Amino acid sequence: MEIKPGPLLQTINSPKDLKNISKEDLVKVCNELRQYIVDVVSVHGGHFAASLGVVELTVALHYVFNTPYDQLVWDVGHQAYGHKILTGRRDSFVTNRKYGGISGFPKRSESVYDTFGVGHSSTSISAALGMAMASHYKGETNRQHIAVIGDGALGAGIAFEAMNHAGIEKSNVLIILNDNCMSIDPNVGALKEYLTDITTSQTFNDLRDNVWKALGKLPVGKDFTRDMASKLELALKGLVSRNSNLFETLKLRYFGPIDGHNVNKLVDVLNDLKGINGPKILHIKTVKGKGYDKAEKDQTKWHAPGLFDKVTGEIYKKKFELPQPPKYQDVFGRTIIELAKQNEKIFGITPAMPSGCSLKFMMDEMPDRAVDVGICEQHAVTLSAGMATQGMKVFCNIYSSFMQRAYDMVVHDVAIQNLPVIFCLDRAGLVGEDGPTHHGCYDIAYMRCIPNMIVSAPMNESELRNLMYTAQLDSTTSPFSIRYPRGEGVLSEWQTPMKEIIIGTGRKIKDGEGLAVLSFGHPGNFVASAIRELKDEGLNPAHYDMRFAKPIDEKMLHEVFSKFKRVMTVEDGTVTGGFGSAVLEFMNTHHYQAEVKVLGIPDRLVEHGTLKQLYEEVGLDANHIAAKIRTMLGADAHIALKS
Amino acid sequence: MEIKPGPLLQTINSPKDLKNISKEDLVKVCNELRQYIVDVVSVHGGHFAASLGVVELTVALHYVFNTPYDQLVWDVGHQAYGHKILTGRRDSFVTNRKYGGISGFPKRSESVYDTFGVGHSSTSISAALGMAMASHYKGETNRQHIAVIGDGALGAGIAFEAMNHAGIEKSNVLIILNDNCMSIDPNVGALKEYLTDITTSQTFNDLRDNVWKALGKLPVGKDFTRDMASKLELALKGLVSRNSNLFETLKLRYFGPIDGHNVNKLVDVLNDLKGINGPKILHIKTVKGKGYDKAEKDQTKWHAPGLFDKVTGEIYKKKFELPQPPKYQDVFGRTIIELAKQNEKIFGITPAMPSGCSLKFMMDEMPDRAVDVGICEQHAVTLSAGMATQGMKVFCNIYSSFMQRAYDMVVHDVAIQNLPVIFCLDRAGLVGEDGPTHHGCYDIAYMRCIPNMIVSAPMNESELRNLMYTAQLDSTTSPFSIRYPRGEGVLSEWQTPMKEIIIGTGRKIKDGEGLAVLSFGHPGNFVASAIRELKDEGLNPAHYDMRFAKPIDEKMLHEVFSKFKRVMTVEDGTVTGGFGSAVLEFMNTHHYQAEVKVLGIPDRLVEHGTLKQLYEEVGLDANHIAAKIRTMLGADAHIALKS
Repeated sequence: MEIKPGPLLQTINSPKDLKNISKEDLVKVCNELRQYIVDVVSVHGGHFAASLGVVELTVALHYVFNTPYDQLVWDVGHQAYGHKILTGRRDSFVTNRKYGGISGFPKRSESVYDTFGVGHSSTSISAALGMAMASHYKGETNRQHIAVIGDGALGAGIAFEAMNHAGIEKSNVLIILNDNCMSIDPNVGALKEYLTDITTSQTFNDLRDNVWKALGKLPVGKDFTRDMASKLELALKGLVSRNSNLFETLKLRYFGPIDGHNVNKLVDVLNDLKGINGPKILHIKTVKGKGYDKAEKDQTKWHAPGLFDKVTGEIYKKKFELPQPPKYQDVFGRTIIELAKQNEKIFGITPAMPSGCSLKFMMDEMPDRAVDVGICEQHAVTLSAGMATQGMKVFCNIYSSFMQRAYDMVVHDVAIQNLPVIFCLDRAGLVGEDGPTHHGCYDIAYMRCIPNMIVSAPMNESELRNLMYTAQLDSTTSPFSIRYPRGEGVLSEWQTPMKEIIIGTGRKIKDGEGLAVLSFGHPGNFVASAIRELKDEGLNPAHYDMRFAKPIDEKMLHEVFSKFKRVMTVEDGTVTGGFGSAVLEFMNTHHYQAEVKVLGIPDRLVEHGTLKQLYEEVGLDANHIAAKIRTMLGADAHIALKS
Repeated sequence: MEIKPGPLLQTINSPKDLKNISKEDLVKVCNELRQYIVDVVSVHGGHFAASLGVVELTVALHYVFNTPYDQLVWDVGHQAYGHKILTGRRDSFVTNRKYGGISGFPKRSESVYDTFGVGHSSTSISAALGMAMASHYKGETNRQHIAVIGDGALGAGIAFEAMNHAGIEKSNVLIILNDNCMSIDPNVGALKEYLTDITTSQTFNDLRDNVWKALGKLPVGKDFTRDMASKLELALKGLVSRNSNLFETLKLRYFGPIDGHNVNKLVDVLNDLKGINGPKILHIKTVKGKGYDKAEKDQTKWHAPGLFDKVTGEIYKKKFELPQPPKYQDVFGRTIIELAKQNEKIFGITPAMPSGCSLKFMMDEMPDRAVDVGICEQHAVTLSAGMATQGMKVFCNIYSSFMQRAYDMVVHDVAIQNLPVIFCLDRAGLVGEDGPTHHGCYDIAYMRCIPNMIVSAPMNESELRNLMYTAQLDSTTSPFSIRYPRGEGVLSEWQTPMKEIIIGTGRKIKDGEGLAVLSFGHPGNFVASAIRELKDEGLNPAHYDMRFAKPIDEKMLHEVFSKFKRVMTVEDGTVTGGFGSAVLEFMNTHHYQAEVKVLGIPDRLVEHGTLKQLYEEVGLDANHIAAKIRTMLGADAHIALKS
């Protein structure tokens, strides 16, 4: 079924076309844009509620500003679907997040309108300020640089660092605070309460409203507007003390809050702000999921709902005849509760991903023992370290690619002090449709080089439970990282009895001849499939699930290298410095000689697509593994080691 | 010459002894403590001005609080000398920062009074909050948790993340903002101006003063004080609107600013605050270097002045007969100016280390083209990325161990977008007396695993200049990291003509037989010394300066492994996943077979000491390298590769 954009949207192939539409018709454009997003996302999937919430803002920004000369940076970027549709990607929007299709996030290589690649939150102010400082340096004084950032993203440290700097630079940065009280889950923290205070403070609002009313009555002539706006702002400053507003204390001129769903008002205000030089912030109030009733009411569920019936709002679930394995996430979420019931020292921490990582179960059941700290990976890790000094066993759950943001805290606050914090690295390996910003490719390498760090990965749900159990034992006295992928495991009967794993020991899955495959983590299942496939061909490689990349099981490796001259390592992390390299280091240290094939994620960016497509592309699926085993086993005569 | 503490200080072997001293004598204790710090640091070296600035605070804290039950966390920690002296380390203080002596920073393994290891800034609030939440969870409701943080450190993102969280927790956290307008260099940013505003705002001060006067008059009975303090605070809240103060907007009860050099007032105020539950912040004004005139007047110079004559204030400089090589830092600082004069796209960014990394030269000479953004590594990197999108060539200079704090920005904002930002990683390798928090051990591993990243290290000043020259060329289109150590290079005539280096190519230093040594960066000089030493013994190994760990010079490695069966790699980074591993990966991929010895920093914490001591300890000095070459060359008959 072809999805047709509305009559106005059909005509908009670039912001230039949008600018030709009369201001009166902008509401229609917004309605059509919103409908098109609903139409496409319901059938093709993707992020949903965030883009609905900024339809009016998106239209107003491209209506008012001279994009792409003016630089528009979307924070996080999962709200930028409207932006993509208005900037030449309306028809390709059906390929959104699909293999070979357009990215679900702004991406510089995709469009000149995508000024800065995003995916992780809270980078937009720094990036826009960098652009603005460059423009200032070049003398492009009328160029505008706009960062659109949510209230959730504003809580991350880098956003504060950037505001603290922006306030003392003379550059043209406009920060638009898209305040909807949400991250993926409801936003938390004192700042959120403060923003609510601003919005509900009648005195404050009145004052602001007066200014905006005055501005609204101004003639359109730009110079006059600029002049008047400055005067009014000064008057306002006289009324409200310099220190009365958080953003003003950071030397950012503060405007708002205003209704972010009134496109005409947004256009007026943005036009006025265009005439005011220097750093400034416009606070707009929006509703995530705006215009789609169910999404407005359950914003977390509708953040990225999957496919759904746009009329009834029914979210389609895949149906299966047999019981399916649970997600690793849910196994984590259920297991930590099980453990916490037995061990009162256990505490759970997540930076803004309670639903995504399933710590939410514990937050609901044991609210005094699990906390969402907001988009604050750095704080989450050092907070965990602080708790660990008091004997607490903290499970700090952070996605692999987001853990990059807390790297120094892992090194400096946890590992150097050898505090037994437990890091659960969710979304390790390729993540699929979110693409390169979200793939968890580097954690094996960046964790393995840190002294004291235990680096582990379970091959299945039972192993995850055993690793979690082991990590929280008093006998475990070092930081312990457990990485596992997004999505389903392999055991439908996952609630296995938990038992201790001796740290640094692997498991022999099967004996074999000619070749040993050493796998790390979930891809061990791809190896097992490959080996089953090869059995009929008479090939019988051994398979070891190493479980730990550090400390690596040296006893097992001595066995392997004593017995096998051909070894394959398999991991869903980069081949540069990862598990395979650990095996090579062992081999070198102990003077073994063997042909080793290191399989993993190649040292290049892997784009988005389904997990199946991506694992095929990088040669980590069972078929490719089988093919490579065949090659190694069939290559006896051909491959001679050079010397 | 023995250094004698004053008569009161002599009696203080723990905070318990301090508590036995009458309040009237606390000024004397402060004077003696300050004098003892001057006496010891002038002769034994170390950080200086920061500890002088908090003498009164340190005495007051240990006088009022029940340490170590109450948890006291010093941010950064180079101001904690007084704390160490009062907590049982008075006599061992002469071993401060010396090999085998006490650490220059608080360290958990050193004392129960050191509740949290520090070195990097801005972690204290998160750590103290973690401790406080643990205490709250355990029901230890009268336990206090105090974070002492400077105004410079407060600008880092994690501090904001922590305050945003602390404000909504019920835990007993007292943040003491030690406001002296300084980092190592003068503090920057809007927040700094705001803090100055608070301090100079007469209305605000009057209001606060009234409260403190009232508190000062209260009877000492604790319950009454607590009650009255609460009432007064409420009254105050009525006068000043809820949103009138940055910290109050974050739901932290704000007290101050007060004079941080009035020890009796500090004691009174801290006693009162002890009775007020929940998160709160006390703002004190101090002078860095207080009590030592020269240090007060030039705080950056006296941050860590080296040895000096305490009477005249003359800082001793080593004297040399021959011209000495400059520091790598100064070569960077001079060279970027030279390059910037030729290339108008060049811009320099440092997060709070303008003196340390010598970007200060450029900030002085080209103030519109170089900026100190404060303690904001994350922002510094993404700001650089933003500028790079506009065609700027940004040299972002960050110490190796501090770059850990911006790791996600390096991956997500720079490398994924393949923006040609230039990272100068200063203080790479071991740093000496600052110890494990500051050693730059991990950057080769954590940079090498990132796609698109160029990872380089110069062997000398001329090579540093050539790498800098190459990095800023338009033909260089990828992120480019250049790591170099703290301190002197090797060429007294360093201002060599700059020339392009083909990216991914090494240099053959000398041909040889029997063994090839592949070095990366400055330790190549240790190798060169070792080889000179071995010449007389008739040993003649080859030496290659590889220059790039990524892309590695494959042509050169083919030459090496075709010719040599014994190879040694040498780097001043961890042996886990670093340059040596890159060589092993190459060897494995190309089926070479050789005995390879990987020399580098071992996979354990290396403590503090002089660089000479530490390089000896880890076996990276010329003597050890020579010995290992001897072993490899003499071991023909003994070492047979297992198979």
